[in-house]
Amino acid sequence: MANITKKVSWSSRADESGAAGEGTPLLNGSEQPRLSRQDSIKGRPKEIPHNEKLLSLKYESLDYDNIENQLFLEEERRMSYLGFRCLEISRWVVCGWIGFLTGLIACFIDIAVEELAGFKYQVVKENIEKFTEVGGLSISLLLWAVLNAAIVMVGAIIVAYFEPIAAGSGIPQIKCYLNGIKIPRVVRLKTLVVKVCGVICSVVGGLAVGKEGPMIHSGAVVAAGVSQGRSTSLKKDFKIFEYFRRDTEKRDFVSAGAAAGVSAAFGAPVGGVLFSLEEGASFWNQMLTWRIFFASMISTFTLNFFLSIYHKNTGDLSSPGLINFGRFEGDSVAYNLYEIPLFILMGAIGGLLGALFNILNYWLTIFRIRYVHRPCLQVMEAMLVAAVTATVSFTMIYFSNDCQPLGPEHAEEYPLQLFCADGEYNSMATAFFNTPERSVRSLFHNQAGTYNPLTLGLFTLTYFFLACWTYGLAVSAGVFIPSLLIGAAWGRLFGILLAYITPNSAAKWADPGKYALIGAAAQLGGIVRMTLSLTVIMVEATGNVTYGFPIMLVLMTAKIVGDYIVEGLYDIHIKLQSVPFLHWEAPATSHWLTAREVMSSPVTCLNRIEKVGTIVDTLSNTSTKHNGFPVVVQVLGNEEPAKLCGLILRSQLIVLLKHKVFVELARSRLTHRKLQLKDFRDAYPRFPPIQSIHVSQDERECMMDLTEFMNPTPYTVPQETSLPRVFKLFRALGLRHLVVVDDENRVVGLVTRKDLARYHLGKHGLEELQLAQT
Amino acid sequence: MANITKKVSWSSRADESGAAGEGTPLLNGSEQPRLSRQDSIKGRPKEIPHNEKLLSLKYESLDYDNIENQLFLEEERRMSYLGFRCLEISRWVVCGWIGFLTGLIACFIDIAVEELAGFKYQVVKENIEKFTEVGGLSISLLLWAVLNAAIVMVGAIIVAYFEPIAAGSGIPQIKCYLNGIKIPRVVRLKTLVVKVCGVICSVVGGLAVGKEGPMIHSGAVVAAGVSQGRSTSLKKDFKIFEYFRRDTEKRDFVSAGAAAGVSAAFGAPVGGVLFSLEEGASFWNQMLTWRIFFASMISTFTLNFFLSIYHKNTGDLSSPGLINFGRFEGDSVAYNLYEIPLFILMGAIGGLLGALFNILNYWLTIFRIRYVHRPCLQVMEAMLVAAVTATVSFTMIYFSNDCQPLGPEHAEEYPLQLFCADGEYNSMATAFFNTPERSVRSLFHNQAGTYNPLTLGLFTLTYFFLACWTYGLAVSAGVFIPSLLIGAAWGRLFGILLAYITPNSAAKWADPGKYALIGAAAQLGGIVRMTLSLTVIMVEATGNVTYGFPIMLVLMTAKIVGDYIVEGLYDIHIKLQSVPFLHWEAPATSHWLTAREVMSSPVTCLNRIEKVGTIVDTLSNTSTKHNGFPVVVQVLGNEEPAKLCGLILRSQLIVLLKHKVFVELARSRLTHRKLQLKDFRDAYPRFPPIQSIHVSQDERECMMDLTEFMNPTPYTVPQETSLPRVFKLFRALGLRHLVVVDDENRVVGLVTRKDLARYHLGKHGLEELQLAQT
Repeated sequence: MANITKKVSWSSRADESGAAGEGTPLLNGSEQPRLSRQDSIKGRPKEIPHNEKLLSLKYESLDYDNIENQLFLEEERRMSYLGFRCLEISRWVVCGWIGFLTGLIACFIDIAVEELAGFKYQVVKENIEKFTEVGGLSISLLLWAVLNAAIVMVGAIIVAYFEPIAAGSGIPQIKCYLNGIKIPRVVRLKTLVVKVCGVICSVVGGLAVGKEGPMIHSGAVVAAGVSQGRSTSLKKDFKIFEYFRRDTEKRDFVSAGAAAGVSAAFGAPVGGVLFSLEEGASFWNQMLTWRIFFASMISTFTLNFFLSIYHKNTGDLSSPGLINFGRFEGDSVAYNLYEIPLFILMGAIGGLLGALFNILNYWLTIFRIRYVHRPCLQVMEAMLVAAVTATVSFTMIYFSNDCQPLGPEHAEEYPLQLFCADGEYNSMATAFFNTPERSVRSLFHNQAGTYNPLTLGLFTLTYFFLACWTYGLAVSAGVFIPSLLIGAAWGRLFGILLAYITPNSAAKWADPGKYALIGAAAQLGGIVRMTLSLTVIMVEATGNVTYGFPIMLVLMTAKIVGDYIVEGLYDIHIKLQSVPFLHWEAPATSHWLTAREVMSSPVTCLNRIEKVGTIVDTLSNTSTKHNGFPVVVQVLGNEEPAKLCGLILRSQLIVLLKHKVFVELARSRLTHRKLQLKDFRDAYPRFPPIQSIHVSQDERECMMDLTEFMNPTPYTVPQETSLPRVFKLFRALGLRHLVVVDDENRVVGLVTRKDLARYHLGKHGLEELQLAQT
Repeated sequence: MANITKKVSWSSRADESGAAGEGTPLLNGSEQPRLSRQDSIKGRPKEIPHNEKLLSLKYESLDYDNIENQLFLEEERRMSYLGFRCLEISRWVVCGWIGFLTGLIACFIDIAVEELAGFKYQVVKENIEKFTEVGGLSISLLLWAVLNAAIVMVGAIIVAYFEPIAAGSGIPQIKCYLNGIKIPRVVRLKTLVVKVCGVICSVVGGLAVGKEGPMIHSGAVVAAGVSQGRSTSLKKDFKIFEYFRRDTEKRDFVSAGAAAGVSAAFGAPVGGVLFSLEEGASFWNQMLTWRIFFASMISTFTLNFFLSIYHKNTGDLSSPGLINFGRFEGDSVAYNLYEIPLFILMGAIGGLLGALFNILNYWLTIFRIRYVHRPCLQVMEAMLVAAVTATVSFTMIYFSNDCQPLGPEHAEEYPLQLFCADGEYNSMATAFFNTPERSVRSLFHNQAGTYNPLTLGLFTLTYFFLACWTYGLAVSAGVFIPSLLIGAAWGRLFGILLAYITPNSAAKWADPGKYALIGAAAQLGGIVRMTLSLTVIMVEATGNVTYGFPIMLVLMTAKIVGDYIVEGLYDIHIKLQSVPFLHWEAPATSHWLTAREVMSSPVTCLNRIEKVGTIVDTLSNTSTKHNGFPVVVQVLGNEEPAKLCGLILRSQLIVLLKHKVFVELARSRLTHRKLQLKDFRDAYPRFPPIQSIHVSQDERECMMDLTEFMNPTPYTVPQETSLPRVFKLFRALGLRHLVVVDDENRVVGLVTRKDLARYHLGKHGLEELQLAQT
């Protein structure tokens, strides 16, 4: 309890590499705030600002800058032009596979949800119909609630007990990964399995969730797996793609995977590419982008193809994504100039509602962090939500008397007659008694008059709070579809009211579906605050570019209004994890700061030829846990500080120690075989902790020559460099360590991710986050 | 004649700043190859490989890295958070204006072309109809040819005599600008005026050109103008946006302008954003991208709105671009799985034809560089092409007997009856007797049977050669529409032949328009080799995302096939200009090279406090023409080489000299007022040449203190850094100078753009281009 951020599901286990800091020796004194027992028990959610003002030191960075040491350069120089061509081709092959497998997974989820949910609705519908006649509908309610709770329980158990990182949509985690932060276990096979099963359970269990967000995470896991040509979990190494076993290459493929996920989820290949670029791109490269696009296209195509087979309509490529908004065609979709102010108004409403959603969810998350952190509690909460969702839905349906004629054009698969006259069905039931995707589509396309305003108002209200409560549960689930659904509901309501107050021009407002679409965009934009990629995703999902301009306006308004109040949902969750996330640019007013103030110092340096004992001691020092060490040469007999000559990583040193790459001084000969890049690649990415490596007392006296393995040309900056300049260099190149040198090229400090992420713009100008080993 | 690359139109005048090199003192000895008179006269086009193997030293780089000197930092530090917010808002305002003005320009071009071309066709049509009856059609031909030649003459004269840089589509130039190369006069107001008038003349003059490419250039000029808040040409300074008067900010706005241009040209706002990113993005930033998107949206919206007024249909937003492919709707557009191999085959054909086009145009361009470089010759060539185009068109129409019934559904505005029966029209005339945009649309949408195969085949053949001859003339014109037209023609032919050889399944191939679209994509892709952005542009122009997958496949195939033979058209023209263009990555096999081999050395350094005379002499040295000078401190009485302490640019020194920022040692006082950033901004971007600054003999003895003005934290690399690593740093940060230092922080060399652009992958591995002051 002393450590309040500890138990949030997506990072609850300690990182197995045992290394956490990025090279900061002193953590700026010992000011790390630790909440005392009293603080965390007494405080009410809004009284704990610590979570936001903290920066966790337990997250490692990824190395997105190639380590160009001698081994690497030798390999590159040996490689012929043909070799590079082959590599390039294998990159394409990998991307093809990523797209194909991601599409297959999306297809599997879709079919599983369709079948299971169909079965469930059939059972409940028959039961309700039976008891509508004889009375005693409370039994139906019980059946529904228990059924839902049971299904959700399965989903929650596998998530809470087996792989907490699989909870939620996974989008914040992938954002962090692409940003360069190592989130433990985020791209493992086990995570994928739990995620897929979990999302099926959540959706079938009737929670207010979507299956789209998790696709992005799934795609990323597939990419990380395929590109490495092996599975560490399954202990199977195919001995292929060994060249790709480093962070830089893996990151590129993970981008492709995330894009393929978006593409499969929304049928939006271009949106997928833009999503990956928006979230990750300190890198941008024409060929890479083109490959990402290829993966996205393959993914949506695969999904489309297999779904067409499933729907017994082979070759009909009309369902490119998990959610399709249906076709917006004909005259009803055209918008007029005078509608644009209305759209902007809707954008503002979406921004406000989105901000409300985020604030509520923020409080809820803090509550969860403090009180609902044991797996059994998490499972129980999920079950509770499932039961409540069923109960609320049932109550709403029960008390609604919104009967509509059952026409042949209605696509609802499970129309509930309930107390309606024969040939009619209960329209509130359409909204609740359906997968959320279908409900969204109904709201977009059902003709005017299908819903009455009261139904929509009540639905919006209840679904809003249900969705807000649901996000953050220990289940795999996305927030896209619930957001769209809430927005579509109030958007349609908005459209109906417009038609109501301007009865003379009824024909002009004929299509409330148009307003449903705009409302959906506004609500989603207000919650997640994505910009370009979301516009393109929405446009691609509607299959019609006409709406590009209004959707852009709406999303922009929603973002401006929402940002004024609170951050986006994903950013809130990233902040609550105290992740050292680097934004696009340094805070505007940070020119006051220079590398001298920002850097950590003094730095633990190693000599080019260093005693093994010193290295082991340095690595074993649990109070610092550095990950990068500048390598220096000390001129013998010279009192001056040593000059920088390279940089070596903890992971490299671990591999060197493991392979006993020692020089025995006494006998003056090498006792080891020549180490190759392959040895480093085999150990990647799960390097053993230093504790697992045994070094004898004799060996401690040996020396280790780091020349071949260190990066001999680390990027450096002088001490006077301003923070924005340091930031730009760091961000543009995806660095992990940046050495600060004086004008004699002597090491004076080291800038790492957390040194830069520490500064952010608060309400009162530049603020500095505190660091803690939470 | 001795200097064969000198007279290509888009760079024919010497840069007025007089500075050309990037800091190379020795140009690697004196190996610059200069073609002797004999060489260039005797050689046939393919025997002059020099153009390709040369790298011109006359192109300066732009400074895309902020110069963070003391003045700049002081200003930034003085600025409050509110100040930064205001700046941010003004960026949005500027982007809004860019979009609006670009849209207006597109609108103007469209209406002007529509009216003038309409008038011309009306005159010619009446004439032809008159003479069809009485005989003597040769008079009609003469009228047509003379009319075309006269109109084209106007366009060619303003381009050739007033602003040669306005020739062509301007896309290669904008590519270069975004890449960081200063192309003289490319973003001037005069260029814009000539471009707009020129493109109207070319299109009305009936050349095989489009008006879309030039929009990209126009948008960029608008952006460069609006963002600076002044017009140097008009000598009007609005005293606004002064903060944006530097290369970094200007580059961002020019990206937005280019995107707005694409957006207005094709109604493709997302495609526009992607175009800018594909061409320019060593930078990528979420907010910037969002602003670019905003400009694009405003641009297409403005065009759409004003065109709707022009078409007397206010508020109908259905013509978002200069070219609209028309709506592809209904069942006829769906494609089947078994068509995909056919699409890929078409992609390959497009790649081959595109490569053929490029090779022919390459030879033609070399011919033009050598023999057609005087403005009067250029005008005459343009007139010749115009007359030949009219003649060929006339001949084709005359000898064609492809009569089609004149139905009400035909949208051709100028149907030519010629020798057809009453109620019929000549279908060959539809293809030639129309603006190319309309012809493309007809090929996409006219129902099956409108064209007979022979007509299409002949049309493809003639138009291919006409378009190839036309591109590179001294007129403003784009190659997009001709490419689309050629492709649409052979694509439709392909579709018709398919239906012909599979008569039983005729219904399935019912829509040759589909094949026309795929053919158009293939041909365009084969010529320009754009990838992601072109896919998105095509998808947005069709207004239908269904074709995303086949278009991607086709473009990919076309690019692979084409790249195997020859580069893309724009790259060929960039190469023929010997522009030091930096590609995305260093050549694959360049790990052998290190900064030591790549850099220029020795470097001319300046002392922190330097004698004015030395500075003037250094700047006046015409044999070197450096643009950047490392600033060093020499420890007094120490024999060691001096240590790096900063970097100063020629342009900064010029401003310092102009304002006489001297310290008179004798009297030990400052004789100048304190210089401010404003002084540098006022001089930007047309810094006077050193020759125009008078420095007296007394002043030469003064000292100049560079401390405040130099960039105190230039990026540096050690000598051992590999070329790919240097390249990455250079490209990611948009650098102009990169100082190479030894391990004591002493300057040993300087890497500039041309040092990196010099290496490229040739057929026999890594090749080194030669440098020349051409």
